[in-house]
Amino acid sequence: MKVTDILSRYSQRIDEELEVALTSIDPMKLYDASGHLIKAGGKKIRPTLVVLSCEAVGGKAEDALKAAASIELIHTFSLIHDDIMDKDEMRRGEPSVHVIWGEPMAILAGDTLFSKAFESLLKTETKDLLAERIIYALKTVVDSCIKICEGQAYDICFEEKFDVKKDEYFNMIYKKTAALIAAATKSGAILGSGSEKQIEALTEYGKLIGMAFQIQDDCLDIVSDEEKIGKPKGSDIVEGKMTLMVVHALENASSADKKRLISILKENNQGRVEEVIEIFNKYGSIDYARNIALKNVKTAKKMLDVLNDSDAKDALILIADFVLERKY
Amino acid sequence: MKVTDILSRYSQRIDEELEVALTSIDPMKLYDASGHLIKAGGKKIRPTLVVLSCEAVGGKAEDALKAAASIELIHTFSLIHDDIMDKDEMRRGEPSVHVIWGEPMAILAGDTLFSKAFESLLKTETKDLLAERIIYALKTVVDSCIKICEGQAYDICFEEKFDVKKDEYFNMIYKKTAALIAAATKSGAILGSGSEKQIEALTEYGKLIGMAFQIQDDCLDIVSDEEKIGKPKGSDIVEGKMTLMVVHALENASSADKKRLISILKENNQGRVEEVIEIFNKYGSIDYARNIALKNVKTAKKMLDVLNDSDAKDALILIADFVLERKY
Repeated sequence: MKVTDILSRYSQRIDEELEVALTSIDPMKLYDASGHLIKAGGKKIRPTLVVLSCEAVGGKAEDALKAAASIELIHTFSLIHDDIMDKDEMRRGEPSVHVIWGEPMAILAGDTLFSKAFESLLKTETKDLLAERIIYALKTVVDSCIKICEGQAYDICFEEKFDVKKDEYFNMIYKKTAALIAAATKSGAILGSGSEKQIEALTEYGKLIGMAFQIQDDCLDIVSDEEKIGKPKGSDIVEGKMTLMVVHALENASSADKKRLISILKENNQGRVEEVIEIFNKYGSIDYARNIALKNVKTAKKMLDVLNDSDAKDALILIADFVLERKY
Repeated sequence: MKVTDILSRYSQRIDEELEVALTSIDPMKLYDASGHLIKAGGKKIRPTLVVLSCEAVGGKAEDALKAAASIELIHTFSLIHDDIMDKDEMRRGEPSVHVIWGEPMAILAGDTLFSKAFESLLKTETKDLLAERIIYALKTVVDSCIKICEGQAYDICFEEKFDVKKDEYFNMIYKKTAALIAAATKSGAILGSGSEKQIEALTEYGKLIGMAFQIQDDCLDIVSDEEKIGKPKGSDIVEGKMTLMVVHALENASSADKKRLISILKENNQGRVEEVIEIFNKYGSIDYARNIALKNVKTAKKMLDVLNDSDAKDALILIADFVLERKY
């Protein structure tokens, strides 16, 4: 079994749910702006995790499909708003929503997808499910939305802060990236009528692979070439973003190197990316980050021990490994 | 009984709920930006309507307080994002959120309040209430959020469209303004365990006073002075906004006046506001708008006939009248 096979197993049904969610948006301009990134693709890992987590606790995929669409809608909403905030002009190989439709319509498109996410989840059939389970799933998803906002706010604040501690960094990426992935696995387990123990295990699994995902993202930024990842090598450095390598280097570098690193991060200069990578290598910051990501993935897989064996469980293990294998 | 007394009757408990909703937001910058407009005040008509509608069907105020906070949070979220889109720099006598904290933090503050709105509603105690009722209330609120986005999108699109029909205008203000007020009264009636007939009546009441509220807003723009309303007389005209008077005048004016009106609306010129008001007067457009608002309020009050007599019912009647009496 390969990860691409797992993702394609559910992609059609997830796409159908997304289409249903967006179909009635009016006026046409808002419909087009809201659907732009959804139509541009994306790997759909998050919604797949919802369905797999549901199946892994013995539930039916059908019961999790609306929640899966909901998680993908929230992810897309946050991308649209983040691109406005970060002035990113490309996303998924396409011009960003605000580049095509302007900022006002892009803000509205994000807000619309946010609303549609809850509408979708609220349409989950209560035939075989208790209404309380749906409320539990809703609370999970809403909680992750608050965390996404807080994480993005920290990310913005950290661009002007050069004494970020590791715990502050981990808290930021947990909120910004991992909370939604944890909400995906948790809501799937809830809607699959999992036990509290199973729900907890899958929540922790989601959180851990989510953190690993973000750290891997940090690492990919300085090793990948532009063609594969769609943005120039070292763009985080140029934008002065706080990554785990930066936090580690700032904590361990000599005061001269620390000073040099801070001045480069403030500078927005593509020409000094290699210099930063040298500093990272000098202090073992890249290896440090990779090891943390690896440890997270290992612990994440261990969490799944409480589940009975199933295809879905095997798929979750493969996805955990994929987080570190992916090259873009 | 005066409207100010009604509003102050619930204001403390609503403010407490709002404080509870916002209290844990982190980091501080996001907390401050999110709470800015909430702390700046506002009449709190919408949350009061939630509680009154709950009581008017025989429910307890307590059961509606979280929903009341939820509606006010959604209203505030939409103001923050609208101010970014419309480049409005003042709100509730204070600089807008994006003016103080910048656009990225303002977008996030709006998104945070949006999330907090659902969190608040989801915290409604299910002790005496069926979970199904809470899901019904949630669906109502989510549906109004989608409409708010669509209404705002129409409002933006209409700035470049000079053949807007009355029905298109009514659909726009229904979505932009009335849908949330209808969600306030409807969710209150739902959480008060009202009958389907009562829920329908209060939904229609909310929709009708909401439409009247927006039309009155259109009218106030050209009669109020700047001191009271906080923006220059005729600012809708200067911004080229589609109001009921404009729609009426464009439908009824001679082709010369129509041409002149369109050219002024495209011009963004404060100096030609009086000229537009003359055109409105020539074709009876202000009287037309006032009459529509009056008719809506009359029908809204009639809707309440299905309810038993109560203080809450009397208060709802007074609030309907207040929509037209308010001068700012």
